[in-house]
Amino acid sequence: MSAPESATAEAATISRFPVPRLADLPADIRERIERVQEKSGFVPNVFLVLAHRPEEFRAFFAYHDALMDKKGNLTKAEREMIVVATSNLNQCQYCVIAHGAILRIRAKDPLIADQVAINYRKADITARQKAMLDFAVKVSQSAHLVGDADIETLKGHGFDEEDVWDIAAIASFFGLSNRMANVTSMRPNPEFYAMGRG
Amino acid sequence: MSAPESATAEAATISRFPVPRLADLPADIRERIERVQEKSGFVPNVFLVLAHRPEEFRAFFAYHDALMDKKGNLTKAEREMIVVATSNLNQCQYCVIAHGAILRIRAKDPLIADQVAINYRKADITARQKAMLDFAVKVSQSAHLVGDADIETLKGHGFDEEDVWDIAAIASFFGLSNRMANVTSMRPNPEFYAMGRG
Amino acid sequence: MSAPESATAEAATISRFPVPRLADLPADIRERIERVQEKSGFVPNVFLVLAHRPEEFRAFFAYHDALMDKKGNLTKAEREMIVVATSNLNQCQYCVIAHGAILRIRAKDPLIADQVAINYRKADITARQKAMLDFAVKVSQSAHLVGDADIETLKGHGFDEEDVWDIAAIASFFGLSNRMANVTSMRPNPEFYAMGRG
Amino acid sequence: MSAPESATAEAATISRFPVPRLADLPADIRERIERVQEKSGFVPNVFLVLAHRPEEFRAFFAYHDALMDKKGNLTKAEREMIVVATSNLNQCQYCVIAHGAILRIRAKDPLIADQVAINYRKADITARQKAMLDFAVKVSQSAHLVGDADIETLKGHGFDEEDVWDIAAIASFFGLSNRMANVTSMRPNPEFYAMGRG
Amino acid sequence: MSAPESATAEAATISRFPVPRLADLPADIRERIERVQEKSGFVPNVFLVLAHRPEEFRAFFAYHDALMDKKGNLTKAEREMIVVATSNLNQCQYCVIAHGAILRIRAKDPLIADQVAINYRKADITARQKAMLDFAVKVSQSAHLVGDADIETLKGHGFDEEDVWDIAAIASFFGLSNRMANVTSMRPNPEFYAMGRG
Amino acid sequence: MSAPESATAEAATISRFPVPRLADLPADIRERIERVQEKSGFVPNVFLVLAHRPEEFRAFFAYHDALMDKKGNLTKAEREMIVVATSNLNQCQYCVIAHGAILRIRAKDPLIADQVAINYRKADITARQKAMLDFAVKVSQSAHLVGDADIETLKGHGFDEEDVWDIAAIASFFGLSNRMANVTSMRPNPEFYAMGRG
Repeated sequence: MSAPESATAEAATISRFPVPRLADLPADIRERIERVQEKSGFVPNVFLVLAHRPEEFRAFFAYHDALMDKKGNLTKAEREMIVVATSNLNQCQYCVIAHGAILRIRAKDPLIADQVAINYRKADITARQKAMLDFAVKVSQSAHLVGDADIETLKGHGFDEEDVWDIAAIASFFGLSNRMANVTSMRPNPEFYAMGRG
Repeated sequence: MSAPESATAEAATISRFPVPRLADLPADIRERIERVQEKSGFVPNVFLVLAHRPEEFRAFFAYHDALMDKKGNLTKAEREMIVVATSNLNQCQYCVIAHGAILRIRAKDPLIADQVAINYRKADITARQKAMLDFAVKVSQSAHLVGDADIETLKGHGFDEEDVWDIAAIASFFGLSNRMANVTSMRPNPEFYAMGRG
Repeated sequence: MSAPESATAEAATISRFPVPRLADLPADIRERIERVQEKSGFVPNVFLVLAHRPEEFRAFFAYHDALMDKKGNLTKAEREMIVVATSNLNQCQYCVIAHGAILRIRAKDPLIADQVAINYRKADITARQKAMLDFAVKVSQSAHLVGDADIETLKGHGFDEEDVWDIAAIASFFGLSNRMANVTSMRPNPEFYAMGRG
Repeated sequence: MSAPESATAEAATISRFPVPRLADLPADIRERIERVQEKSGFVPNVFLVLAHRPEEFRAFFAYHDALMDKKGNLTKAEREMIVVATSNLNQCQYCVIAHGAILRIRAKDPLIADQVAINYRKADITARQKAMLDFAVKVSQSAHLVGDADIETLKGHGFDEEDVWDIAAIASFFGLSNRMANVTSMRPNPEFYAMGRG
Repeated sequence: MSAPESATAEAATISRFPVPRLADLPADIRERIERVQEKSGFVPNVFLVLAHRPEEFRAFFAYHDALMDKKGNLTKAEREMIVVATSNLNQCQYCVIAHGAILRIRAKDPLIADQVAINYRKADITARQKAMLDFAVKVSQSAHLVGDADIETLKGHGFDEEDVWDIAAIASFFGLSNRMANVTSMRPNPEFYAMGRG
Repeated sequence: MSAPESATAEAATISRFPVPRLADLPADIRERIERVQEKSGFVPNVFLVLAHRPEEFRAFFAYHDALMDKKGNLTKAEREMIVVATSNLNQCQYCVIAHGAILRIRAKDPLIADQVAINYRKADITARQKAMLDFAVKVSQSAHLVGDADIETLKGHGFDEEDVWDIAAIASFFGLSNRMANVTSMRPNPEFYAMGRG
């Protein structure tokens, strides 16, 4: 347990807001953080930064898991593509760097994350994936314009109604995440930058 | 229980996606919906539309309650002002109409919601509330530009650090809500339009 | 005549600029205002605010009447839809609230104005009316891009050349009105908010 | 009277809409057009294009004259600067070319119009005139943001309240004019291009 | 040689940065400037302003010549149309005024430059030229969106692959030029304004 | 020399336009490319893609070298920061990935490039460097608004007039580069992604 403690030791630099000590957190939140730490070898700062508000923390990660861990036609790598493409347009450092790492790992491709982040139209992805990202970016930037034609385009690429919801919900949820990361000045852990690049 | 049943009877028109029958929902979700119905006299469509995805439903409303029902310096009316001002810029029919009704009721003011929705700079609100909405709109529209100066401006109006988080989190959460409402074509219940208008 | 006098008594709050006393106005303007008062039961503030400049007042209302009272294929309700949809995008409190009231009355529909104001793409209107509003919004926001294809789209919905002019002229005229209302901080009369909602 | 007749002979090319024959116009409109022709040596196309709608024509020019011919602190050249600067941002060919000519003549300066049209911040105008155009452009592009601070800035440059109205009204009126010119595809007369350049 | 000397005498006003004396310039640059002066009768200020940095000057004009003097399917007038249309959107006074003059001369048309600058969609140019300018403006304003469909549209108008490169490169190069002219406050020579106006 | 040959073997995938064979290039260009290859161990694709047009290639790299290799107060890392921050806003995959690599190496910092690319306001850089990037982004996105106040801000951070030119010129030049990379669909070499991350 010493590692997260030392992580919080420098916590003043990972958020504009107070960062709680692991030991002071409710048990369920502390346990979730410890599980992540065991699996990843470090505690991603988003857990520590959002733990400042335990109830919001629980809702945030329940939402996250409902969208990112659920079954469905979208692969895990595709879900991360949505996060990475929309988060760069929202200029969210934490999300692009952390989820870029996850995307590289999920896709087993060291190049994909930077390509998708900067301009997915030029990325080495399928036409279906480009259509998915066209829609995700439209939801993220101008959801008020979404209409039947957008859904039809997705269906023409083999997506079904549930996939449409998934894409929209992931783009919407990370729009929330991007805004909170920018307002809190959430700092990405150094570990993320090189993960999955090997 | 017959009322929500009949509400779902016409459910095809309240969402682009399938709307579950109340009877088919998990007990916790059905009970939450019944409680709302008892209190309001009708089931706001957001409950039925989002119930299509029970896990996301639970996370969404847990997040909502954590932000909108928590204690803090922001009054309940002020929280609704944030929802209404940012949702109109996102062209979200459901959120402006439903939360406009709640704002009128919370503020006991039949005129406030339309003023805040259309141009809060001209609304009958305090300078402190205008500063709150300036910040909420910045978070909603360009969170990447938020910096120390914005926080200082808020503190100059008497807001503390926790209030800053609240404003940002409400603007961010309803950004998610606005996008899902636009993608699902969520329809506001007719009851909302005239509520609180005196 | 006492009512408009009392209306002007609190006139300092309805405009950033001086508001004339009814008694001081040229006869033609005073008479027009009195006719409106008789018909509506109150004097809409736009009359008092713009009366600060009698010549501009005359031209403004002559233009208004030429567009809104003329014969033609557009119904009166449709003309008000154009005002409401474009004025909300211009964040004009006076025009959305006052013409929202007129739209509810003309359409005999208590819900239509809020729907059209916030996102007409989700409103309970016909496909033809959506095409009309697509064009009106394009004229209001980016008239430099209007071309033959836009006219053809309208004709495909049964509009003729004179209707195209009408839609464009109403969107353009209220663009002027929106800007003057925002610069003068023109205040909507309380009467408008609930009109036609019953 | 033969000249305007010949002008209308090629009228099909000056507007997307029908252009009336001078002889068919109501007497007051025909007389106004003839007066302009006598003074200028040609009939500016805006008169012929808008004469398609006599009532709107009368209101348009009454408004125009109320703003552009009225007494006040703004010089005639300054009023034209407002037209030229805002019309180029609205990409209105007719207004920039026709009012550019008038600006050159009013200012007795062959260079001023192109400078003001393209980027008034680099034009050979006074700091006071730049402040005037900063405000005019704000009214034209984002009037919903106009607030007390803008008025104070103008007052700091010696403008009074009536000047503020004048600037705002000219920017607003030509916003209408720009939109109608773009929708009608109003063609500038060849005579304007070189006027006042000598 | 006295003319450029006198031109530099007033040089403080043509750039925000120091403007070198002709006599102090490296021989190759001085000679290029003298050649231009002989041909045009004056030294366009861009030469004096950019000569502040001799190496960048050489690269700039080598690039310019490679694009504007090369053989190819685009006429010289068409290349100038690209400069004029994109530079006005970038609000670059120097480029619109100087290249507007060159466009009038190349096209032997006194009206074309103002039309193309303000709104090329309304200019007296061919459908092929409008497609060329649609693409040039897209490259200038949102090159990240350029895709296969844009190239196909150009090919449908008879452009080949090398023409596509030419259009893109001219729009891109003058984007650089527009930015440097705006930052340096580069002043157009008075001679340009009336050139080619007949 | 076999490596660049093999690089060109797959050249069809690095550009939308024809990519020349090294052996077919003019000697000076081939030699420059070979020097780069010797130093880097591979041929960055920008050299092969732009070699399609030898004259433009020479001008492009002369300009590049004049800005990036010149002496001055800006460090080499700072120049690369300008490239990386402005290129991500222009969604240019090649420039962010290639110059991100160079920035990591110049700054001897494996984290700096991703931070600066995504949101430099949150990067681990000095206040002076943030002011530099504020200005660079303003030049890149809205150079028409640059004025004396921007220069004064930079001087307040210790930059002199020549530094201002350098920042502006680098932002402007890479604006050109970004547009050409997007239009050509220039592909970043795989080698860049992991360079300097170790």
